[in-house]
Amino acid sequence: MSISGWACKPYDRSQLSSVGGAYHLGMATDISANSAPSDAASAAPSYGGLKAVYINCTLKKSPEVSHTQGLMDTSIRLMRGAGVHVDSLRLIDHDIALGVYPDMREHGWATDAWLDEVWPLIEAADILVIGGPIWLGDNSSVTRMLIERLYAMSGEFNEKGQYVYYGKVGGAIFTGNEDGVKHSAMSVLYSMQHVGFVIPPAADAGWLGAIGPGPSYLDEGSGGPENDFTNRNTTFMSWNLMHLASILKNAGGIPAYGNSRKDWNAGERFGFDANPEYR
Amino acid sequence: MSISGWACKPYDRSQLSSVGGAYHLGMATDISANSAPSDAASAAPSYGGLKAVYINCTLKKSPEVSHTQGLMDTSIRLMRGAGVHVDSLRLIDHDIALGVYPDMREHGWATDAWLDEVWPLIEAADILVIGGPIWLGDNSSVTRMLIERLYAMSGEFNEKGQYVYYGKVGGAIFTGNEDGVKHSAMSVLYSMQHVGFVIPPAADAGWLGAIGPGPSYLDEGSGGPENDFTNRNTTFMSWNLMHLASILKNAGGIPAYGNSRKDWNAGERFGFDANPEYR
Amino acid sequence: MSISGWACKPYDRSQLSSVGGAYHLGMATDISANSAPSDAASAAPSYGGLKAVYINCTLKKSPEVSHTQGLMDTSIRLMRGAGVHVDSLRLIDHDIALGVYPDMREHGWATDAWLDEVWPLIEAADILVIGGPIWLGDNSSVTRMLIERLYAMSGEFNEKGQYVYYGKVGGAIFTGNEDGVKHSAMSVLYSMQHVGFVIPPAADAGWLGAIGPGPSYLDEGSGGPENDFTNRNTTFMSWNLMHLASILKNAGGIPAYGNSRKDWNAGERFGFDANPEYR
Amino acid sequence: MSISGWACKPYDRSQLSSVGGAYHLGMATDISANSAPSDAASAAPSYGGLKAVYINCTLKKSPEVSHTQGLMDTSIRLMRGAGVHVDSLRLIDHDIALGVYPDMREHGWATDAWLDEVWPLIEAADILVIGGPIWLGDNSSVTRMLIERLYAMSGEFNEKGQYVYYGKVGGAIFTGNEDGVKHSAMSVLYSMQHVGFVIPPAADAGWLGAIGPGPSYLDEGSGGPENDFTNRNTTFMSWNLMHLASILKNAGGIPAYGNSRKDWNAGERFGFDANPEYR
Repeated sequence: MSISGWACKPYDRSQLSSVGGAYHLGMATDISANSAPSDAASAAPSYGGLKAVYINCTLKKSPEVSHTQGLMDTSIRLMRGAGVHVDSLRLIDHDIALGVYPDMREHGWATDAWLDEVWPLIEAADILVIGGPIWLGDNSSVTRMLIERLYAMSGEFNEKGQYVYYGKVGGAIFTGNEDGVKHSAMSVLYSMQHVGFVIPPAADAGWLGAIGPGPSYLDEGSGGPENDFTNRNTTFMSWNLMHLASILKNAGGIPAYGNSRKDWNAGERFGFDANPEYR
Repeated sequence: MSISGWACKPYDRSQLSSVGGAYHLGMATDISANSAPSDAASAAPSYGGLKAVYINCTLKKSPEVSHTQGLMDTSIRLMRGAGVHVDSLRLIDHDIALGVYPDMREHGWATDAWLDEVWPLIEAADILVIGGPIWLGDNSSVTRMLIERLYAMSGEFNEKGQYVYYGKVGGAIFTGNEDGVKHSAMSVLYSMQHVGFVIPPAADAGWLGAIGPGPSYLDEGSGGPENDFTNRNTTFMSWNLMHLASILKNAGGIPAYGNSRKDWNAGERFGFDANPEYR
Repeated sequence: MSISGWACKPYDRSQLSSVGGAYHLGMATDISANSAPSDAASAAPSYGGLKAVYINCTLKKSPEVSHTQGLMDTSIRLMRGAGVHVDSLRLIDHDIALGVYPDMREHGWATDAWLDEVWPLIEAADILVIGGPIWLGDNSSVTRMLIERLYAMSGEFNEKGQYVYYGKVGGAIFTGNEDGVKHSAMSVLYSMQHVGFVIPPAADAGWLGAIGPGPSYLDEGSGGPENDFTNRNTTFMSWNLMHLASILKNAGGIPAYGNSRKDWNAGERFGFDANPEYR
Repeated sequence: MSISGWACKPYDRSQLSSVGGAYHLGMATDISANSAPSDAASAAPSYGGLKAVYINCTLKKSPEVSHTQGLMDTSIRLMRGAGVHVDSLRLIDHDIALGVYPDMREHGWATDAWLDEVWPLIEAADILVIGGPIWLGDNSSVTRMLIERLYAMSGEFNEKGQYVYYGKVGGAIFTGNEDGVKHSAMSVLYSMQHVGFVIPPAADAGWLGAIGPGPSYLDEGSGGPENDFTNRNTTFMSWNLMHLASILKNAGGIPAYGNSRKDWNAGERFGFDANPEYR
């Protein structure tokens, strides 16, 4: 079965006729028709046992308006509606030191709120959503600070001896005026999977206006809150994060075989053999 | 519990003494000690029901030596050892057209082997691993061709009405002389999650020599096949791909609630509410 | 002197009042006022001695409509109006082999039009502009093919013994529906400077609609051709490419001191000293 | 004329024989032969009138050892040897606020040393070199802070009415253990050209060890300071920055025609015509 439609844009439909061939997919079952919702729509799962934390990496301290928070809040509301316990914070509201150690107070900084105020929420969470603005098409300094500190917790392992993020799932939300959701998400989601998070399908959502200056997400007339594509992606992302977190929890996490650093260092190779011809 | 060590490099240990503070993590339980393997090491799961496909995006047609294939083969052998059915191909060995439609023969190309030779393997697989070389720090043209064609299958949905890649897991392997595994992986893994794959922890592996000209992975004296970091990452990636594929299969895939385009288009919002203040 | 306004968007003006402080720059001399053009506007330089080549890396063969070509053509017209000789082609219209050698016919490919049809135009040009579409937020396979072949000409040097691209200038143009001009430009412009091109200020231009599906650049109602930001950037890019090409030509190219591989290999170090303490 | 050799690695020479064809370039004139330096080598230009500023975006405050500073210092020494006045600082040693305004003290921050301690050096410089470490394959938070503040000076114009960075040239230096020089440079150099810098050929230099944990640049036995590729790139970058800065200075900067925002806003279009068919 194939039906037309896509969360993104694989081709320019306006060109279909100009290339002469009939596009055979989805003609009979175009999902843009307003057919009735499927049964799936009526069976909302309840995810009361899950915990999520949303960290906004805006450059603006509270209570300044953060446009990114505006979009993050729609995902937070959705998760809370599904029973998830959600914590939320702006990293810049906390006195976080710069560096790549768990506690920068041991490395020359007078203060560092990371271990006391931020890390416990992440450690306890099943789901981490990183939100951020976009500057010159790339992540903000505060987003990079968060990645650096996530990375700094390298000495932490979970009860199975896996890196501490194993068993958690991650997603990302960005808003900008004109460009860079995908670029920013590439780096953030890459970092998350690299340190141990599972990344569900469609784990990034965002909003951008057309190229050039223009209103930000929460500004009057931006079109952001009404953007169907943004809203659908945010919804899909939120549910996929919950689904995967629940699936992992029900499975007892990710099996420890084949990903234990301790065992690898002890000489276990889990079936890996670089040079079979040398046997 | 916390123990030192990390699959990557959060800080420069040679600087630890110069900054004066004792690094409190893991001193007593350094996993670099050769302790005995844990029980986990002895319980290799069997994944006989899984299917994987490895697609090498080298610029070299068979039978030229592909260094990337050399590293991919270690992962393939490991999966086969765990019972997984593995298919493997070089995209450049097939007569694939350029474009973003499912069948470019309907769009002006005389030939296009995508639908007949490549797509069926992906459609049937639980696991897709994309391998590629690195040129000027970025992905090869052939890797981009593959991403474009994956994206082109936008009209395909699985039996739950989700995008066709839902329920599958993805990973990536790169080799280069000096730089760019992470940059290349960022884009490839991003694309895979964006269209519907689940990305497990540590889903990328690769090899790079020191900056500047030097031997490639399979060259005599490269150090590639003996690189402990590369081998560990390849092993962890391979097992995490199998674990997640198995977990998803056992869970019956990802629940369809909240990620069905058909239902969204029919008006279902799955709890999403952009503007609660307007109620 | 300072005046407000910017080719891009350093801050959200809608937030200025909410943060309480008056923004002191440019209040008296806001350039958005319609003051008369400066003298500079009346003195259009003539660049009759320059040659440019525009290479479109669309996935569509001629005569299919390429939206990127639509934007490229505005820059081409502007350069021709300034007297520049401009050549223009779509790479996909030529039978280019895949690979990283100057002539892939020597490496197993039956045909390869690179050396005969494309390279001579680049070699003769003072200015190279690479245009391309955006797929999943990144460059097209054809754009990567072009970068690979530019890179492949590594054995070519100019008459000063510098890499062959020294003395040339480069720019880039992209169009997409929703995201990725900056990401695509980062990689393309990086590659160009890396192999020897000079990159002038504001050397990238592009058009994107708001996030999500929507019309492409040349589609009715896209807003693309009327986009003031896109048009201004395209204009600034075009003139900066011509200015820099002319400046370099008048200067006799870039001095060869300090960038000659031949001299470096012969032992000349041009004042470089890695370890002064060892003297 | 063509001779073999390249600052980077267009192909794997070890594979040349395996593909059967003789590689015709450079056989007779291999520059790896120790021929005598050319005349160019003996004519070192003097650049006494130029000013450069090097900004290190390490996460380590002085006097901690910064490996990146180690490599930056080789470029600084070379420029000073050529007569250039060089200033150098670590951004983290200064009390810089986060944000995208010229003076964050007007936006809720108690202190902000940007305008007093850092900006005057940049404003006065002909050359800006940004150095930084690499974390998870991407730029540091401090590098992003610098980019945000460079961007924040959007209201500043030079005496020609161009953005304030017009007439300046930019380069970048990175060190890391294993991966990411090119990715980090892509974003930094992109941002610099976007706001107005000219990027000379080969404007990035860096050092990376082989993939996986290992010594940093200044560590005993890293191989960094002896790396011929790194040293050559650093040398070429340094001279190209000086050459371009000098050329631009001698040319009286970049002509203002075609890149004046004031004139554009006043209605001047500099020959741009989006829709010739509508005439």
